[in-house]
Amino acid sequence: MQGLFITFEGGEGAGKSTQIARLAEHLRAQGDDVLVTREPGGSPGAEAVRHVILSGAAEPFGPAMEALLFAAARNDHVEQVMRPALRSGQMVLCDRYIDSSRVYQGVTGNLDPDLMRAIERAAINGLMPDLTIILDLAAEVGLQRANARRGAGAADRFEKETIDMHHKRRDAYLAIAKAEPERCQVVAADRPAGEIAREIAAVVDHLKLQRSVKTKQPEVAK
Amino acid sequence: MQGLFITFEGGEGAGKSTQIARLAEHLRAQGDDVLVTREPGGSPGAEAVRHVILSGAAEPFGPAMEALLFAAARNDHVEQVMRPALRSGQMVLCDRYIDSSRVYQGVTGNLDPDLMRAIERAAINGLMPDLTIILDLAAEVGLQRANARRGAGAADRFEKETIDMHHKRRDAYLAIAKAEPERCQVVAADRPAGEIAREIAAVVDHLKLQRSVKTKQPEVAK
Repeated sequence: MQGLFITFEGGEGAGKSTQIARLAEHLRAQGDDVLVTREPGGSPGAEAVRHVILSGAAEPFGPAMEALLFAAARNDHVEQVMRPALRSGQMVLCDRYIDSSRVYQGVTGNLDPDLMRAIERAAINGLMPDLTIILDLAAEVGLQRANARRGAGAADRFEKETIDMHHKRRDAYLAIAKAEPERCQVVAADRPAGEIAREIAAVVDHLKLQRSVKTKQPEVAK
Repeated sequence: MQGLFITFEGGEGAGKSTQIARLAEHLRAQGDDVLVTREPGGSPGAEAVRHVILSGAAEPFGPAMEALLFAAARNDHVEQVMRPALRSGQMVLCDRYIDSSRVYQGVTGNLDPDLMRAIERAAINGLMPDLTIILDLAAEVGLQRANARRGAGAADRFEKETIDMHHKRRDAYLAIAKAEPERCQVVAADRPAGEIAREIAAVVDHLKLQRSVKTKQPEVAK
């Protein structure tokens, strides 16, 4: 049986890593084989591309080139790692995927939306997530958490700008969830981690049940 | 005045380098500022990407990743080198461009044509050639010339397959020329180099004249 492909999205400090670890634990306790991975990166080819992006930090790569490079890295991650894992029945939990590109590139507005979608299509070649968990958090809270994690104390002089950007990204995530309600599940992230984890586990268990019923139907029909 | 963007296409052994050098000489003799460049490569970013492609020789990069990487390299070449040169009035002569991607990837058939076009659009961001010279040669002749250049003597055991591939590429180039007659000029390449060079020079001189008339028209209208 094909595994489930679950992606985690959300701004900084929303608790993606924590929740991915919790869900992996929950699934393993049920006997599932789980692969935890993340973007950008996650495969040798993607890492190689990442080096190009990083090495070009001083160089003015344009937004289209950057998007194409990220797409190339994603394509390698999809074809070399995630698709084979799903085919072998693994549950794949990925930290950031297409929605991060849509939100982060979409908010800067440097790239034509049609082109963004076309590049996305080329990158993923049909590998859409079965479920996307969007950890939703007020911009101010997420930023505070992220700052605390980095050990930053003093107020950042770009804080205002950063807050605005976070607001825009949050809105962009919520717009995606509204446009694709079958795939996306918005989870309020301003609660204790255990409570959030239980909610996510319930959503995933429900999806597993649905899928196993769906997969069994054709056999019953015979 | 914006410079002219002229690309050269054709199979192996068609004489692209020779004809580019001849045309550059012809244009410089008229006082034009000429930039000769080539793909893949042609800019620092494109070279960096090229290293990724080459370093992955042992690794099975998929066709989509390869296309995306080439597109990223092309985008850098376009934005960092060719577009600025054209804006500053230089004549840009480029050895291979979009038609090579269309023909070489199109013939292998590993990538959905719609995706190919979308990736192309992202890569060039509107920078279409003003003129594309397609050096047309029978597959057998081109292959013979290319082999002679490489110093290969004995018959290649893949020769039959290679010839078939050359036939397909030639047909693909001719199909592009038919679909975009305004941009593409097919030039028979099985003639003495000087004769071909004179034909290309005439085509380019004609285009220069057309363009200078066109550029002057709005001023006259005032």
